[in-house]
Amino acid sequence: MNKHAIYHKPKSNFCYPYDKNIIHIRLRTAKEDVEKVILVYGDKYEWNKNKKIEMKYSSYDKLFDYYMISVKPFNRRLAYYFIMESKKKLFYYTEWGILDNHPDQNEIHNHFFEYPYINDSDIHVVPEWVKDAVFYQIFPERFYNGDTSNDPKKINQWGELPKRNDFFGGDLKGIIDRLDYIKDLGINAIYFTPIFESDSNHKYNIKDYKKIDPHFGNLDILKELVEKCHQYGIKVILDAVFNHSGSDFKPFLDVIKNGKNSPYYNWFYIHKWPIKTNPPNYETFSFVAKMPKLNTTNPEVKKYLLDVVKYWMEEVNIDGWRLDVADEIDHNFWREFRKAVKSIKKDAYIVGEIWHNSLPWLMGDQFDAVMNYPFRTACLKFFAYKNIDEETFKKMINQTLFRNTQQVNEVMFNLLDSHDTSRFINRSNKDIKRLILASVFQMTFIGTPCVYYGTEIGLEGEDDPDCRRTMEWNEEKWNKNLHNHYKNLIKLKKEHISLRRGNFKWINDLKNIIGFIRETDNEKILVLINNHENKKNVSISINHHKCIDLINNQKIDVLNKKLKISLPEYGFKIILIRKNDNKIF
Amino acid sequence: MNKHAIYHKPKSNFCYPYDKNIIHIRLRTAKEDVEKVILVYGDKYEWNKNKKIEMKYSSYDKLFDYYMISVKPFNRRLAYYFIMESKKKLFYYTEWGILDNHPDQNEIHNHFFEYPYINDSDIHVVPEWVKDAVFYQIFPERFYNGDTSNDPKKINQWGELPKRNDFFGGDLKGIIDRLDYIKDLGINAIYFTPIFESDSNHKYNIKDYKKIDPHFGNLDILKELVEKCHQYGIKVILDAVFNHSGSDFKPFLDVIKNGKNSPYYNWFYIHKWPIKTNPPNYETFSFVAKMPKLNTTNPEVKKYLLDVVKYWMEEVNIDGWRLDVADEIDHNFWREFRKAVKSIKKDAYIVGEIWHNSLPWLMGDQFDAVMNYPFRTACLKFFAYKNIDEETFKKMINQTLFRNTQQVNEVMFNLLDSHDTSRFINRSNKDIKRLILASVFQMTFIGTPCVYYGTEIGLEGEDDPDCRRTMEWNEEKWNKNLHNHYKNLIKLKKEHISLRRGNFKWINDLKNIIGFIRETDNEKILVLINNHENKKNVSISINHHKCIDLINNQKIDVLNKKLKISLPEYGFKIILIRKNDNKIF
Repeated sequence: MNKHAIYHKPKSNFCYPYDKNIIHIRLRTAKEDVEKVILVYGDKYEWNKNKKIEMKYSSYDKLFDYYMISVKPFNRRLAYYFIMESKKKLFYYTEWGILDNHPDQNEIHNHFFEYPYINDSDIHVVPEWVKDAVFYQIFPERFYNGDTSNDPKKINQWGELPKRNDFFGGDLKGIIDRLDYIKDLGINAIYFTPIFESDSNHKYNIKDYKKIDPHFGNLDILKELVEKCHQYGIKVILDAVFNHSGSDFKPFLDVIKNGKNSPYYNWFYIHKWPIKTNPPNYETFSFVAKMPKLNTTNPEVKKYLLDVVKYWMEEVNIDGWRLDVADEIDHNFWREFRKAVKSIKKDAYIVGEIWHNSLPWLMGDQFDAVMNYPFRTACLKFFAYKNIDEETFKKMINQTLFRNTQQVNEVMFNLLDSHDTSRFINRSNKDIKRLILASVFQMTFIGTPCVYYGTEIGLEGEDDPDCRRTMEWNEEKWNKNLHNHYKNLIKLKKEHISLRRGNFKWINDLKNIIGFIRETDNEKILVLINNHENKKNVSISINHHKCIDLINNQKIDVLNKKLKISLPEYGFKIILIRKNDNKIF
Repeated sequence: MNKHAIYHKPKSNFCYPYDKNIIHIRLRTAKEDVEKVILVYGDKYEWNKNKKIEMKYSSYDKLFDYYMISVKPFNRRLAYYFIMESKKKLFYYTEWGILDNHPDQNEIHNHFFEYPYINDSDIHVVPEWVKDAVFYQIFPERFYNGDTSNDPKKINQWGELPKRNDFFGGDLKGIIDRLDYIKDLGINAIYFTPIFESDSNHKYNIKDYKKIDPHFGNLDILKELVEKCHQYGIKVILDAVFNHSGSDFKPFLDVIKNGKNSPYYNWFYIHKWPIKTNPPNYETFSFVAKMPKLNTTNPEVKKYLLDVVKYWMEEVNIDGWRLDVADEIDHNFWREFRKAVKSIKKDAYIVGEIWHNSLPWLMGDQFDAVMNYPFRTACLKFFAYKNIDEETFKKMINQTLFRNTQQVNEVMFNLLDSHDTSRFINRSNKDIKRLILASVFQMTFIGTPCVYYGTEIGLEGEDDPDCRRTMEWNEEKWNKNLHNHYKNLIKLKKEHISLRRGNFKWINDLKNIIGFIRETDNEKILVLINNHENKKNVSISINHHKCIDLINNQKIDVLNKKLKISLPEYGFKIILIRKNDNKIF
């Protein structure tokens, strides 16, 4: 056995409570190296009642296999170790490492891995509604100009290509005006980039955290917007920009003026006074002078920002927050933030902007999910750039899944593009077929998809600022096939619980085809994707006799327990698998 | 290169801020597999200024080598990846795994490992005084009976072997009376097992958290004790038993009486009412009916217990807490506990009772250290049982060191025995020589040693209750050599800063001998331990010409840059290495 490959760690993505009765245990081994993994588990105070259970082969990536098992501790306490069989030899994996012999019974307590006790407050409870959500991300300045009376002094013609500092007049009233469009698309949750007062078009440099930007509207308009969204069954989350303020934020202006005598001096990280901006002699976001970093470890700042949180949640009844530059703020702040948010709305959704491995924020004490940029990276490489094959794509996706707990994966914010990236269509050489396949994967994969406004009609855009073009409202200019495709996908997701709550499982023996199953107790859906320029024939063994192609609603016959599918070039299938008796699965 | 062995994880023991300027980075490789490890690091917003630095070979265990480096991020932000050289081939280790080729420059941002920003509140700051402390653990019921007027009704003769429920009359006044003894031993910190009102001799089932047990004394006596300790330069930590109360704790009595109508019903985990005790129909510690588990996730319970913490810290000015059954309480509780404790006394010491890998509690948001039972396990095997060799011992010790951050190792509560274990001398077949060597290791190793009362005079004891014998005050019955040995060791630790603050480094090329260096900028001490029944000669290359044997204060000459030492059977040496010019090192 490859001993170096074996990995497990309690209280991590490898061992965590899924709910108050169930603990998930994962184990990593070298790929195709181990035939069998047994979990030996019990209560450390009653070890004589210990049990053995075989772990399930779950997944793999480039180098490793992953095993998984859900166990129910007898008394909320779990002590355990692993027995692995490799080439007919047994190995024992305990907290002290890999042993060739079973540890002495009188030393067994020294060897346990432990999840010592499932305390309710340590369980990561994620909001149920997010599992049913299809998000739409709106950059308000560019969505629709619903009220020309609040426009900035100088605005460009709607439809012009945006430069970094341009304004176009989009506002909250515009979103209200276009809510029918959003509803019609099937969206049931919106994430707005910042809407508080700020002199930029993106509003990530906030001047007043308690005021709607006057070019966007006012408190009443936001209330109306959120109320209408809620009437339409659409949840709303706002952007919390707490890593830094704008340089015209009153406390920062006070520091500029009064230096160490300012009561706000310690709200920021001032290296030297008087303040200089080129280069800034204070901490900033990414060296941007207009974005002085807030000292979120200062109790006064914490109080102020949590008060902002409370204000918007209570005043406007929003349903959660997206957290800007979340990884550069201290963990203590986020822990208090989570407590504050969840105490106001138990099922509020908290999604951080973190581009890298986010486990340190996703164990239940901080966020519910993050913007899944690693998911985007994998989709770009496979669907857009086409520089990796099916196997590599699956390994990348598996890697992102194993980075996090099951409950996090279930509400992960899966995106193909955003205001911080070029549009997926641009990365796809403007080939709409690639976006179609990527969106099939996004909408049928485990987690919560988010559509960046306009992506569904083929809106283009290179990196910021080009990815923030105005929304196209002239339907003649839409890619209507794409739009219909998005509507269909979202409709399917809504109609089929397995696409929202089902287990996710690759079909591993397909060649040059992506195939996976989403499955609940009562429903089973098969997704097949052909990412090639020629057609592919697939034959899948199946125990059930009737299948329905959910895109065209045609029956597919199963002969000799074989489902035979012909996938055209860049084709895909979403197939409902039925039992013989016509009951679903 | 053995790719399966490579391991790193940001925001763990492999990547953490040591202080506000320094981040420690560790990397694991297969043993003797990699010739060179380079860290490539920079600021992600200014990556063009990135730097390369070679990592230092640091340590090893059974399967792995560990590399380490301290880096100073340019702007508190750290993005990085690794380049490893193995058999003349280069490998690249990024967040996406091991690559055979350097990632494309335009994809480098997707590949970074990151410590996104050093926020002050995420840094684990440990109390400085603990690095200078030699702890003494006292089980008050068995130390000295200083006030016979407060004795329990029925007490045994001092010196009788204790049975589980016996009382002997030890009390706080007794400790005051014997403070000179403790001071004379060189102790400068005491950990008391519980002293709050409880009907047992160990007092782990507390009836009243705000009252000193009447058989132990009262508030004034405790105040006198702590004041006198402080006058003697001795810090005091108390035992916080928050996982469970006693079954005669008023809130639990109220639940017994009033069931769901009791305001305290949710202070516990009641499965069914009326309460039954055999077996208990409520959650307990280890199925013990007298120890109902407290619901520390209940805000009222949290408030109550944190108020208890505040009360004793403010009223009596204690210096920290040892946390009973710490791993079965929720992390949120401990986070609030830490905040409460440190807000009252910034340098209070928080040490948890956790017997297994404790990293989830030791990243700075919860405890400063834990009772280091894995350290004891290694010492038992090597010194007491003699069933592992030097190499295996070193690997076990290295494993315990690499489980935690540097700052935690510096204040780790290193013990050979406690009230929860048999005495080390009993595990050593009553061979005092083995205890002597183990104590040399304990007192000269990195971390904070704790002597369990009586171990220093040869007090014996098998598992609980035998390990809680009365302290022997008849000096005739002491092992005086052992006592002197302890006094000398503690004196040396006090006199030599390198034994308290020095780096720890094994001398790896010795055979059948344990050798290591403790070293600060200004001092260097060599420790050699011969754990064999025959004498051993060692020859160590050395650049310095004069050495002093710190046990007998004799000079040792260095000839031809070789330090030649003859270690008698079960012998040890603690050697100060001086420079030629007689200045220390």
